[in-house]
Amino acid sequence: MADQFYDPVIYPVQSGFRLSDEQHHHAIRVSRMVVGDRFWLADGRGTRSECVLTHASKKEAVAQVVSAAKVEPVWPCRLTVGIGLLKQPARLDWVIEKLTEMQVHRIVAIESSRTVKGNFRADRWEKLAVSAMNQSLGSWLPIIGFSHFEELPSLTGSNPSAWIAHEKRLESSENIRKVPVSEPEDIFVFFGPEGGWSEADLAFGTSNGWRALYLGPTRLRTETAVLVACSALFQQTIP
Amino acid sequence: MADQFYDPVIYPVQSGFRLSDEQHHHAIRVSRMVVGDRFWLADGRGTRSECVLTHASKKEAVAQVVSAAKVEPVWPCRLTVGIGLLKQPARLDWVIEKLTEMQVHRIVAIESSRTVKGNFRADRWEKLAVSAMNQSLGSWLPIIGFSHFEELPSLTGSNPSAWIAHEKRLESSENIRKVPVSEPEDIFVFFGPEGGWSEADLAFGTSNGWRALYLGPTRLRTETAVLVACSALFQQTIP
Repeated sequence: MADQFYDPVIYPVQSGFRLSDEQHHHAIRVSRMVVGDRFWLADGRGTRSECVLTHASKKEAVAQVVSAAKVEPVWPCRLTVGIGLLKQPARLDWVIEKLTEMQVHRIVAIESSRTVKGNFRADRWEKLAVSAMNQSLGSWLPIIGFSHFEELPSLTGSNPSAWIAHEKRLESSENIRKVPVSEPEDIFVFFGPEGGWSEADLAFGTSNGWRALYLGPTRLRTETAVLVACSALFQQTIP
Repeated sequence: MADQFYDPVIYPVQSGFRLSDEQHHHAIRVSRMVVGDRFWLADGRGTRSECVLTHASKKEAVAQVVSAAKVEPVWPCRLTVGIGLLKQPARLDWVIEKLTEMQVHRIVAIESSRTVKGNFRADRWEKLAVSAMNQSLGSWLPIIGFSHFEELPSLTGSNPSAWIAHEKRLESSENIRKVPVSEPEDIFVFFGPEGGWSEADLAFGTSNGWRALYLGPTRLRTETAVLVACSALFQQTIP
């Protein structure tokens, strides 16, 4: 199977474009590609191009685009997943990878009142996401960002589909099955850090129009809750 | 919050039971528990006991059961998840943890025709499962086992709910939403290794009454497919 590389912007050179240093290394050293070999190039925003290697040396590699296609997202909606930062940041690494494979639209690391330590590893997450996208031959890269909890309303606005996952079942709590993903709207789902949301967090959220989401009686870790909920939403997209 | 320990069999001593060496170490050294402190004890088969530490020394720790309760599984059915062994066994470590948090009934490591290298790490998985159960204060530990692919029919028998996840959509493929979890029956879902199932594997499965399961057009890694599918089933159990 042909390799896939990621490049948000390609640099045209005479009769083609130049591979980035990292791609150059990967293509020549790791995959031992030779002139004439084909590969995929994804821009992370839905364009996937088939390319052919036209020049390869120790110094640089040049390729030509054979054909390009726009790949539609698998989600009808745009799903933003907010995740409380964890004491053990490695627990989130895999979530980034899995959410990328599931092609969520955006991932926001959240610092809230109960955040023990804020480890927003932007570069690492970006790298993990690129690798996961290429590995799964996807064409969409999640937007990865950071937000203080109190600033989230500027993201959700008056959107009617903003959800805050809460371990206790409130009277107003909805089941994950009630979150609609079939409309082309923005959806926001926020997950707290280890200790969960504080009562103040919850009150702040509901006062901003967010709705409580209940994930069942079992005690799930943050990253498990994210995966369970997003997988449940993702499977709704399976035709 | 009180710690939870796991012990499938407790050893009665005069007026109580003796903690295992590992629990003893954890209780005294790690959690710095003192006589009078309470903790939970899970047997992994649904019994959860509240205990009180009655004796603690460098040599041993003794506790008494204050009360015991039977905790029902969250699943109406018994879900067995079969997973092809992977070249990078660490990719499955987290799956074990997550499936334990989701309280699946049984996890079977599968060696099949496309298995690159069989790394069934029974002890490690058992340890990860115990730790995940205790951490999430669950009372059920998945049964962890190994099977050659050809021997799986002896597990599924003539059970009508045995499924083989396949990346291509066959005419007979069902969506994950069609897998019923509401009956108190056994359900089996099998996931292939990196390269997927071979055509022969698939033919063998269907000849044994297994049904093809389709997880959508995105290319998911084995461990992601397991998580997406099991999370989708798990959310059906959320009341």
